[in-house]
Amino acid sequence: MIVLSNNKKMESPVRVIMFSLFFMLSIFPFSIAVRSFGNSYLHHHSSESLSSSDRPYEVKYFTQILDHFNFNPKSYDTFQQRYLINDTHWGGAKEAAPIFVYTGNEGNITWFAQNTGFMFDIAPHFHALLVFIEHRYYGDSIPFGDTEVAYSNATTLGYLSSTQALADYATLIIDLKKNLTAEQSPVIVFGGSYGGMLAAWFRLKYPHVAIGALASSSPILQFDDIISPYAFNDVITKDYKSESESCYRTIKGSWKEIDEAFTRTGGIEELEKSFHICKDQVQNEWLRSWIQTAIVYAAMTDYPTESNFLQPLPAYPVRQMCKAIDDPKAGNNTFAKLYGAMNIYYNYSGTKPCLNLSDSVFHGMDGWYWQSCTEMILPTQGNNENSIFPASTYNYTGLASECQVENGVPPRPHWITTEFGGHDIKRVLKRFGSNIIFFNGLRDPWSAGGILESISESIVAIVSTQGAHHVDLRFATNDDPKWLKDVREKEIQIMNNWLQEYYTVTN
Amino acid sequence: MIVLSNNKKMESPVRVIMFSLFFMLSIFPFSIAVRSFGNSYLHHHSSESLSSSDRPYEVKYFTQILDHFNFNPKSYDTFQQRYLINDTHWGGAKEAAPIFVYTGNEGNITWFAQNTGFMFDIAPHFHALLVFIEHRYYGDSIPFGDTEVAYSNATTLGYLSSTQALADYATLIIDLKKNLTAEQSPVIVFGGSYGGMLAAWFRLKYPHVAIGALASSSPILQFDDIISPYAFNDVITKDYKSESESCYRTIKGSWKEIDEAFTRTGGIEELEKSFHICKDQVQNEWLRSWIQTAIVYAAMTDYPTESNFLQPLPAYPVRQMCKAIDDPKAGNNTFAKLYGAMNIYYNYSGTKPCLNLSDSVFHGMDGWYWQSCTEMILPTQGNNENSIFPASTYNYTGLASECQVENGVPPRPHWITTEFGGHDIKRVLKRFGSNIIFFNGLRDPWSAGGILESISESIVAIVSTQGAHHVDLRFATNDDPKWLKDVREKEIQIMNNWLQEYYTVTN
Repeated sequence: MIVLSNNKKMESPVRVIMFSLFFMLSIFPFSIAVRSFGNSYLHHHSSESLSSSDRPYEVKYFTQILDHFNFNPKSYDTFQQRYLINDTHWGGAKEAAPIFVYTGNEGNITWFAQNTGFMFDIAPHFHALLVFIEHRYYGDSIPFGDTEVAYSNATTLGYLSSTQALADYATLIIDLKKNLTAEQSPVIVFGGSYGGMLAAWFRLKYPHVAIGALASSSPILQFDDIISPYAFNDVITKDYKSESESCYRTIKGSWKEIDEAFTRTGGIEELEKSFHICKDQVQNEWLRSWIQTAIVYAAMTDYPTESNFLQPLPAYPVRQMCKAIDDPKAGNNTFAKLYGAMNIYYNYSGTKPCLNLSDSVFHGMDGWYWQSCTEMILPTQGNNENSIFPASTYNYTGLASECQVENGVPPRPHWITTEFGGHDIKRVLKRFGSNIIFFNGLRDPWSAGGILESISESIVAIVSTQGAHHVDLRFATNDDPKWLKDVREKEIQIMNNWLQEYYTVTN
Repeated sequence: MIVLSNNKKMESPVRVIMFSLFFMLSIFPFSIAVRSFGNSYLHHHSSESLSSSDRPYEVKYFTQILDHFNFNPKSYDTFQQRYLINDTHWGGAKEAAPIFVYTGNEGNITWFAQNTGFMFDIAPHFHALLVFIEHRYYGDSIPFGDTEVAYSNATTLGYLSSTQALADYATLIIDLKKNLTAEQSPVIVFGGSYGGMLAAWFRLKYPHVAIGALASSSPILQFDDIISPYAFNDVITKDYKSESESCYRTIKGSWKEIDEAFTRTGGIEELEKSFHICKDQVQNEWLRSWIQTAIVYAAMTDYPTESNFLQPLPAYPVRQMCKAIDDPKAGNNTFAKLYGAMNIYYNYSGTKPCLNLSDSVFHGMDGWYWQSCTEMILPTQGNNENSIFPASTYNYTGLASECQVENGVPPRPHWITTEFGGHDIKRVLKRFGSNIIFFNGLRDPWSAGGILESISESIVAIVSTQGAHHVDLRFATNDDPKWLKDVREKEIQIMNNWLQEYYTVTN
């Protein structure tokens, strides 16, 4: 059973199914689900910084204004914005020791804190204060006092936007520094995925608040007509092909076989049995969505070590899934092969006796649905003839109509490029701005919309052919490969330079 | 009689008087009144570019969105934004010839176009398209279809803000370039005073839309606690002192004498007679406001040639006013001396048989009152012991209460520095951003809040000791002194460099 919290509109099972497919393929972004992580996770990935303190952070709240950019009486409403703070290693205001701020993205900030171990890992070296700020409308940072009210319609949801979030961060950071008498402490912002976009944009829009940004896996070019709508799925195709041509062919051929199964007597039962589906009523779109989710997110999180970002997964999950598909034991049956891959993605622990289609649905993503239907229009949905997924063209009109129906307001597809740019970015930033690191791992489909070449001496791209979605931000582990250690070393070196320059340049 | 259009709250004469004083000294900014200029003005200052075309520009309208930064259904409302366009000298899209855009400030855009002759003067040299965009809520660019409605209360006025205006400009420019197939044409933004702030901020926030900005007399440091609240009036004091010590002393001594006149029998009649007041009922605050207006605005517009920016004025009006004050014919009577100065400021044509106190009030400034009571909080109102005006401290609390009462919403005094920065600006911009010219004339009290030293190789200050409020932007005349010609020559040279670099840097 699919439970989409706070979305009362989707009551019909058919709409839920169509919607969940649409959700993932058309709108659903960075695989950021809101879920709680137990201590076991933290201990598993324990780092020096975390293990040295009983509590990894203190939870605080800041009274934030509802709308920074207009002066309607309503704009003066406030809400409590949550942030997490860790001063274990901070050198203090007197030393003007740095402040590292995570610019929260679409989810519970505790989840981002726990998945951004890099900041904890490097805090001792930099004597840095760590701050993780929650994005408005997510986690505990809900305007209108109540999620039910905040998410009820466009009038209350309207204040959920990237520009408001950036202004929140500026306001909070300035106030925090003032309260700590740390006005002279330089701030570096960090973020991954949408949070990485926010970090990069924050450096560009608020250079007086942050001296630099580490923007990891931030597809700031995945807007408007800057890059091809086929580019995202091209990366996924390449990922699976790189493991084995037969793996790619099996997946590519499966869609037709699934379609056929749905048309023949007993086909649905065959699918249910082949995929070990628990009790869900298998429907075509739903099943395909479930499989596609696994394929897309395994590519995104194709990390070199065991991880638990969206699902518990083995190291190099794409390789493992392809191994299962290519396993001779599965014989020639496409569904049996594919089941092997699904069983890795949805059941790595091996404890589930059967699989649930509903495991492909991320809970608590209504906020991102709103954002991706208003301003964060990311054309990722094209599939060319060679795609691992069925061929399809990007259909903005269809998306716009669906968004209008669901949200009550139409998207603004050109707004992000109007506000933040993106076209001709090299020409624009070659002599404007400084101190941004764009990390991308080329295994990550979102790398297609990333900055893959350095723009200037201090707006630099770090590209890892083997890396996945913001892998650099994860906790260091003993099993990390050399290339990952090198990436982090380089990032640390660059940030060292920023800070050195900051401390030597006088006003 | 003072008529403040669209402001129904101010019906009591006493409030009007207090308010008008407050208006000028506490809030009123850049002396930008909305008035129509006849052809005589244009002919008087005719330049090659204007005389070569029968119409200096075409008037066009753009459908602009009401709120760029939130997605409430209301934000999708639109209004018609006026802009003026002149393509007489444009080299065209195929040549990627440049587009010069004036980022309109608080008034009718036709008035700014006619007072920014520099753009017309240099268009032939650059083969530039000229565009003057009107600021929302001014002139003909009124949301809600009607000024009465737009200005009725905080709910409708709330959308009047600098950030919305900048987003308007970005949206309009991008659309215009697309319509002209001129995506490759570089844009340079121009502005004076508040328009100069907008130009500088536009370059900083929208580098993907404008390759550079000429920000003339833009006091972007006149916010928060960046500079002293005494600095503005210190410049005025210096201006009058520089003409003659006795002129300064006469003005400085006059306030006490005026106060005393109001306390003695027949004193008011004496003042009315001394100042040749027509029919106004002379009240203390009102009279002082009227005199102060003349002193402040003569300093601001202390141009080296005859001008008609706010009032028809002689060349170097401060010098002329001081000459009148020092004129032996006026004897030892302070009021007679001061009258001589007032007669120059309010009656340079010499055609008025008597003077009206209401001439000191600028009409149609309700929009600026709103802005300067919400975000554009410019602390200019302190007067130290040596000030030409009576000593006073800057009283933010009083201003905030008045604003709350008048506007129904409180000011946000730290918002501009949060959004645009200002503190430690050299440190911030030394290695961030490029291509901004900050011109300031040191005769202009607003220069106190300006950028007076170059920050980097391409964020440069041009300072003229003899210049006044955005004098560089005015039409060239045959009487222009060498220093003014040099300033403009330097600006042209720098913009040449920007363009040359733009055309040689490939994406």
